[in-house]
Amino acid sequence: MSDNTIKERAMQLHRDLAGKIRVVSKVKINSAEDLSLSYTPGVAAPCLAIAEDKEASYEYTGRGNMVAVITDGTAVLGLGDIGPEAAMPVMEGKSLLFNQFAGIDAVPLCLNTKNVDEIVNIVKALEPTFGGINLEDIAAPRCFEIEERLKKELSIPVFHDDQHGTAIVILAAVINALRLVKKNMDHAKVVINGAGSAGIAIAKLLMIAGMKDLTLVDRAGILCPGEEWMNPSQTLIAEVTNHRKVRGGLQEAIVDADVFIGVSGPGVLTGDMVRMMNEKPIVFAMANPTPEILPDEALAAGAAVVGTGRSDFPNQVNNVLAFPGIFRGALDVRATDITEEMKIAAAYAIANIIPDNELTSDYVIPSALDKRVVESVAYAVSKAAIESGVAKDSKILMYV
Amino acid sequence: MSDNTIKERAMQLHRDLAGKIRVVSKVKINSAEDLSLSYTPGVAAPCLAIAEDKEASYEYTGRGNMVAVITDGTAVLGLGDIGPEAAMPVMEGKSLLFNQFAGIDAVPLCLNTKNVDEIVNIVKALEPTFGGINLEDIAAPRCFEIEERLKKELSIPVFHDDQHGTAIVILAAVINALRLVKKNMDHAKVVINGAGSAGIAIAKLLMIAGMKDLTLVDRAGILCPGEEWMNPSQTLIAEVTNHRKVRGGLQEAIVDADVFIGVSGPGVLTGDMVRMMNEKPIVFAMANPTPEILPDEALAAGAAVVGTGRSDFPNQVNNVLAFPGIFRGALDVRATDITEEMKIAAAYAIANIIPDNELTSDYVIPSALDKRVVESVAYAVSKAAIESGVAKDSKILMYV
Repeated sequence: MSDNTIKERAMQLHRDLAGKIRVVSKVKINSAEDLSLSYTPGVAAPCLAIAEDKEASYEYTGRGNMVAVITDGTAVLGLGDIGPEAAMPVMEGKSLLFNQFAGIDAVPLCLNTKNVDEIVNIVKALEPTFGGINLEDIAAPRCFEIEERLKKELSIPVFHDDQHGTAIVILAAVINALRLVKKNMDHAKVVINGAGSAGIAIAKLLMIAGMKDLTLVDRAGILCPGEEWMNPSQTLIAEVTNHRKVRGGLQEAIVDADVFIGVSGPGVLTGDMVRMMNEKPIVFAMANPTPEILPDEALAAGAAVVGTGRSDFPNQVNNVLAFPGIFRGALDVRATDITEEMKIAAAYAIANIIPDNELTSDYVIPSALDKRVVESVAYAVSKAAIESGVAKDSKILMYV
Repeated sequence: MSDNTIKERAMQLHRDLAGKIRVVSKVKINSAEDLSLSYTPGVAAPCLAIAEDKEASYEYTGRGNMVAVITDGTAVLGLGDIGPEAAMPVMEGKSLLFNQFAGIDAVPLCLNTKNVDEIVNIVKALEPTFGGINLEDIAAPRCFEIEERLKKELSIPVFHDDQHGTAIVILAAVINALRLVKKNMDHAKVVINGAGSAGIAIAKLLMIAGMKDLTLVDRAGILCPGEEWMNPSQTLIAEVTNHRKVRGGLQEAIVDADVFIGVSGPGVLTGDMVRMMNEKPIVFAMANPTPEILPDEALAAGAAVVGTGRSDFPNQVNNVLAFPGIFRGALDVRATDITEEMKIAAAYAIANIIPDNELTSDYVIPSALDKRVVESVAYAVSKAAIESGVAKDSKILMYV
């Protein structure tokens, strides 16, 4: 489909549906008896049971399967700060994917405030309703503070998908691409272009996974201690990356790199730059809709593996590979947090869907529609939650 | 069913379901094309359309059919302040009724704060997500301020069901009971026992509907100007009720009353008191689960019509007769408010379901399961919204 066809058909679909999700009843009310069991007076009994023990809310209500998809509409897709009303089609899309891929009840909530304290207080107040919080499309640097404070203050998992979902899928992609070209994570040299929330989250997760040689580049240049244009998050990550203290821009950073990861803008990686990379270079160019380099151009310049964020090229880096399974796994064991171990486990679960004999340069990332992914990720995440000591309920795994 | 059977079966039902509602997708994602139309990149088109004109959120998202059911868990059923977690079974029940009776997508949100400013700010922040707000089970007097401020500050309808839903159904019941005993609203003498949020809302609506002779009684006695125990809401309503300045308690207030309305506690109305009422007395005893007087006892004392809040006696005063149709009607014409005219129209729509030739002392209120009610109420409310000048979209009525 051409871009215009997609646009027209998407408009038509959204107009026809007027909302992509529904809130429906699990029970039919056909008699006075139905009413008295599902509503008054019968409903008083589970209310009192929960009043005695709040944890019983996971037993008698839908809380344990209910996730809030929360945004302030400030960083929606590549569209930027388009406001909470305009963010809703994306949040409904997220909710429908939670439902379709993981059977999770996800409620999109678009907030009419950009104030960090207000957003934190609202999500805190909503805690009794939900089993987990998916933060979405909140601009940096506010997204860092919001997530950090909520992770500390809530006893349900909080996950900013734009940071960690992307990071997990990229880690899976990097694991498999290195496996294919037979390079080692320890020694691979990675350049991340775009040092916003996604870029920094990717850098952190790759390091936790064992990668040691990372360089981040933003519009103003390579992140390096002493650069005055860096924001606080960039200053922190600069301390533990760019060990050779290279200064300059992408042109300087890319020399001898094994892996390029772009979360930046269209066309910023040239064929010449790919030629400056190490042998069998790996390119993940995720700017949407136009990647940092088009796959054909990267391949022509010698890239061994190319992935993008788009569904019309091979190796699509799509968050839908991660977030449904992550929340499914976290909810299944009533995890109180989503730990780094759970993220790493999710990445390996995604990567391991593809066995060695199926791994090719066009297939280092499973399809976004591969139904096996969510189960594998959920199981790995549940197990990691138990091992991290954040699972309140581990009996589920006895049945697996 | 005995009370214990209901309790046990309700516990079982809630345990089996673990949540009475589901959030489901209207679209199936089976192909990359599905994903690109419902999610990225297609979703950007409706996002941009809404960014240009916020009103388009009613066209491209589910907002226009989405209602938040919001509580702080401080006045749940007759159970009191049991907290937000424990309030959830009731809120889910409300949501399932919205779905089953009116096809509305209702999201239960139980808030972990009792602070008026915080609740107001949270609901204001949630405005872009919803087409209407149903406040539920919030204790007086906070519920008054919260609703009043939200009605002023939001441009979507806000409705505190415990006040207005009950008041609307009671008004419908009183209209029909007076019709049956051939008494006039202008002259009927009404005693309302229980001057909390529901009692005061009932008094206000009955007066707006044209009733002139009302007396409110609370635990401390009859509301009368000068009584020092009254709270601010009671002081205000005392100015326009109890014209004869009767002092004392229910015993004094009930003399010669045509209508008794109880929103108080079990057994407070005796047979002897019913005998002190005017001829053909009407008794609506709504304390739950045990009414102010049992129907048999009231009838034995000469009551012409008796109603309760219970489904196992005739004439059940049940809010489900009102709220689904009220919101259906308000959403259908994108009402910005729920006006007094809309409430009065809803009450007459409920009352008029029963034609003269079917009206009996056991049938002054339609069954809570009567499918005709929601349509009649919705139509009447839509029409009244247009007439009140609060409807943003009136084309719906051209098709009726």
